[in-house]
Amino acid sequence: MKRYRLLIETNDEKGLVYKVSKVLYMHNLNVERNSEFVDKITNKFFMRTVVTGDFDSELLINDVIAVLPIASDIKLAEDKNKDIVILATKEMHCLGDLLIKNAESKLKANIKAVVSNHNSLRNIVEKFDIPFEYVSHEDISREEHESRVSKAINKYNPAIIVLAKYMRILSPDFVNKFNGKLLNIHHSFLPAFIGANPYKQAFDRGVKIIGATSHFVTNDLDEGPIIAQDIVQVDHNYSWQAMRDSGQNIEKNVLSNALYLVLRDKVFVYNNKTVIL
Amino acid sequence: MKRYRLLIETNDEKGLVYKVSKVLYMHNLNVERNSEFVDKITNKFFMRTVVTGDFDSELLINDVIAVLPIASDIKLAEDKNKDIVILATKEMHCLGDLLIKNAESKLKANIKAVVSNHNSLRNIVEKFDIPFEYVSHEDISREEHESRVSKAINKYNPAIIVLAKYMRILSPDFVNKFNGKLLNIHHSFLPAFIGANPYKQAFDRGVKIIGATSHFVTNDLDEGPIIAQDIVQVDHNYSWQAMRDSGQNIEKNVLSNALYLVLRDKVFVYNNKTVIL
Amino acid sequence: MKRYRLLIETNDEKGLVYKVSKVLYMHNLNVERNSEFVDKITNKFFMRTVVTGDFDSELLINDVIAVLPIASDIKLAEDKNKDIVILATKEMHCLGDLLIKNAESKLKANIKAVVSNHNSLRNIVEKFDIPFEYVSHEDISREEHESRVSKAINKYNPAIIVLAKYMRILSPDFVNKFNGKLLNIHHSFLPAFIGANPYKQAFDRGVKIIGATSHFVTNDLDEGPIIAQDIVQVDHNYSWQAMRDSGQNIEKNVLSNALYLVLRDKVFVYNNKTVIL
Amino acid sequence: MKRYRLLIETNDEKGLVYKVSKVLYMHNLNVERNSEFVDKITNKFFMRTVVTGDFDSELLINDVIAVLPIASDIKLAEDKNKDIVILATKEMHCLGDLLIKNAESKLKANIKAVVSNHNSLRNIVEKFDIPFEYVSHEDISREEHESRVSKAINKYNPAIIVLAKYMRILSPDFVNKFNGKLLNIHHSFLPAFIGANPYKQAFDRGVKIIGATSHFVTNDLDEGPIIAQDIVQVDHNYSWQAMRDSGQNIEKNVLSNALYLVLRDKVFVYNNKTVIL
Repeated sequence: MKRYRLLIETNDEKGLVYKVSKVLYMHNLNVERNSEFVDKITNKFFMRTVVTGDFDSELLINDVIAVLPIASDIKLAEDKNKDIVILATKEMHCLGDLLIKNAESKLKANIKAVVSNHNSLRNIVEKFDIPFEYVSHEDISREEHESRVSKAINKYNPAIIVLAKYMRILSPDFVNKFNGKLLNIHHSFLPAFIGANPYKQAFDRGVKIIGATSHFVTNDLDEGPIIAQDIVQVDHNYSWQAMRDSGQNIEKNVLSNALYLVLRDKVFVYNNKTVIL
Repeated sequence: MKRYRLLIETNDEKGLVYKVSKVLYMHNLNVERNSEFVDKITNKFFMRTVVTGDFDSELLINDVIAVLPIASDIKLAEDKNKDIVILATKEMHCLGDLLIKNAESKLKANIKAVVSNHNSLRNIVEKFDIPFEYVSHEDISREEHESRVSKAINKYNPAIIVLAKYMRILSPDFVNKFNGKLLNIHHSFLPAFIGANPYKQAFDRGVKIIGATSHFVTNDLDEGPIIAQDIVQVDHNYSWQAMRDSGQNIEKNVLSNALYLVLRDKVFVYNNKTVIL
Repeated sequence: MKRYRLLIETNDEKGLVYKVSKVLYMHNLNVERNSEFVDKITNKFFMRTVVTGDFDSELLINDVIAVLPIASDIKLAEDKNKDIVILATKEMHCLGDLLIKNAESKLKANIKAVVSNHNSLRNIVEKFDIPFEYVSHEDISREEHESRVSKAINKYNPAIIVLAKYMRILSPDFVNKFNGKLLNIHHSFLPAFIGANPYKQAFDRGVKIIGATSHFVTNDLDEGPIIAQDIVQVDHNYSWQAMRDSGQNIEKNVLSNALYLVLRDKVFVYNNKTVIL
Repeated sequence: MKRYRLLIETNDEKGLVYKVSKVLYMHNLNVERNSEFVDKITNKFFMRTVVTGDFDSELLINDVIAVLPIASDIKLAEDKNKDIVILATKEMHCLGDLLIKNAESKLKANIKAVVSNHNSLRNIVEKFDIPFEYVSHEDISREEHESRVSKAINKYNPAIIVLAKYMRILSPDFVNKFNGKLLNIHHSFLPAFIGANPYKQAFDRGVKIIGATSHFVTNDLDEGPIIAQDIVQVDHNYSWQAMRDSGQNIEKNVLSNALYLVLRDKVFVYNNKTVIL
């Protein structure tokens, strides 16, 4: 028996839950879990329903569409591992955490490849028998580099591209090409400390908490919709390097938690925010 | 226009959301918020729906009952301030926090009275023009004391009785009399440090985190269904008194957060646990 | 027997701990607690020592000065309640928390007065028999208003002025007049969401954590040295008003924790940061 | 230039800081960091001083001993990587985290070997070119198994033995043999949920926070001195397996944080508690 997630985003109107749940009932489906959210300000309705049973996907979707307002967004996603590609640069902690989780079959994803603009992570990646694509940015234009990275990614046709401390700023073209698929980890509790070396910025500001933020990438640097955040306390004894070391433990958990949510189709994006059902 | 919360607890079966949401649709109600939970282990279904509109409460309830399995638990609670009575002993921090929240109209409750086995909190309570009922436990049996406390409570017919650091152990008779209405704050992250002076116990054990737990009271001391918990970090510099002072800031927030949930009919109890919708 | 705190800030050089502790030993003092910090970047040395015993304060200070580099900062502060004045506007939660803590003798301060640019908090303040100074800002210039507020404060000669949600921007003149004495609570995890209505800003940005920051006030709005911060998790179900209500529980604890540290002379300021010993 | 940590535990008496810092000054040492703690209840004095300079270790220790009360505990530990052996069973998350940290040279330790009573972790360990010692517990007595594990450990003469989810209860003999060197991670916020499957226990109790605790192992199961703890929030949506998955992210960070402290000689043990300087 297959398990699917029915994902609906539409304008709110009276009776939506009734109408959709009627269709599910008529198709004789088991509803394992059902969550809804209505945003009062934008009048948007979000619904995620986990269903099991024997059914014809196309018929089901057509029947759901028939009861929804026009211009609704609807998706039926099977509960199975998604293909992902990881982009990284030199830091190992986020990448390593995903590799270990994958090795113990806890990731609910297939890591198809790791793409990097440096060669230093090749050794760790190849230990885990995962293809490592080295795409140097040296001596070529940003445009050319991104074109080569795109090609490397597209070989694997990933559903999600995880930026596990990929330290290159992405062009609007690149972001558009993979729109909605780019999951990033930023090493601060955004919107604090946008840009380079947030730990140094945090140290200079004298904060008592540091954090990490995972978000989808948009064209505005570090401004995309936030999926998960966490923090850790620091004090005057911390150099900025000590803040970084402490923060990296948070970074890897925030990134893997966000990826967990995305892989389970729990994250809806609207209005540059996320609804997590 | 009135706002109500429809609260359902029943055995799970296929189509429940469909059937209930159909009734709401037929009554032409606006669904402001809808949350469900199915406990797979006990096969229990929980639903909390916030509705507005013009409707006949009795008709609505009857129509909902008609589509539910027999032996369902159903309630239609109006969104309005509930009457509460607070029990306290000598400590002021939890009581004071509720008094301040009440003074700024943030409590969503009417504090009808404070009942105490000591007289020391009379002064602070009467500042806020709230009746203070002093019921001394001296020179009388526990039975007699509880009988007098019960009478003091019953004068006000509260929906919720908040034990804001009430330091008396309650008899099964008393608990049964107010079953499901007694909300307590315990000054540890339960189930650690049940019983007397948990901060001293925490200090002796050398823990690095202390906490607080708000729960409904049952006949098993500190074993009732947990509603909210929070913690704060400590270290070797903390005496047990310093742990207590630090913990009291957590206690008052955990208690008021739990009360917030209970006052909004968000807390379902089953199997000695809570589902919070 | 009196208890004092010896507070030293100076340029670091070899043997400082030895030289200072020798003076304390020669004066036959009991050292109850001793903490030091050396900032490697600025080469600054900080020391806080709690001493008890019979001694001549002036002699002791002179002997300590004699062993320190020139241009050292040294203070001998008695362990006793400090006089404070609270500035507030309309919100009650931070003020109320301090009033309750004071009523239960947990504040280690004497609240000499509450000064406000509105009259709405008079009632709660006078319940606690504390002078309420209403200084309206209407129909007068900012300059004139601050002059009147200053006069109201100066009547009580406070060691610390607590801005418990005082919603007026302070002029450089005012800040200079009370330099190092102005303790503020800002309702965000600074440096995120500087300025007006940070909860609305947080809501618009779609963050998953909100926070509060207590800091000394300097001439740069919300840029002063941070003393304490804390956060609480939120999600898409939170309106900005719900974020505010949830955040206010954090605000009051962060403010009272920061005040606790300041009242015990634990906070050193340098380089727009704090060292907390 | 070498960096050492001077570690002192002794009975408190007047002038200790003076006397010790005088010795350091006479030896012309640079004090990089100095921390002390006095436990008022047991009258114990703890001091950790990081010193650099050219000096004769033996002379220095003798001079320090000369100024301390008799029966003092004193150690001079060089700041260098310590040898460790990891014990594990089947779970990979804690072990994997240490392997990754080691691969990026962030552990400040040399992992000499991993010893396991199962063979399932061999593959991941050998990827990192670290010896894997398989010591099956099948068909032999506990005594015999522990004897073989001891031999496997002793081959590497480790300063610290990290139990990274080693799921065997240790006999008093074994604990005594490696007394003070056994660092464990327990998957609950101790003292809650001692014993087997704490996540199942936490689920059954209906807690709203779960946690992890790292502690030194003593003869009382899960009762040893606590070094580090952390927690994560859960709710009614979590099955016990979901609690476990969420908790494992905390476990690995708590264990690596505790190991970080132990490797830097920051942890003093007394009275079944830890002082962390």
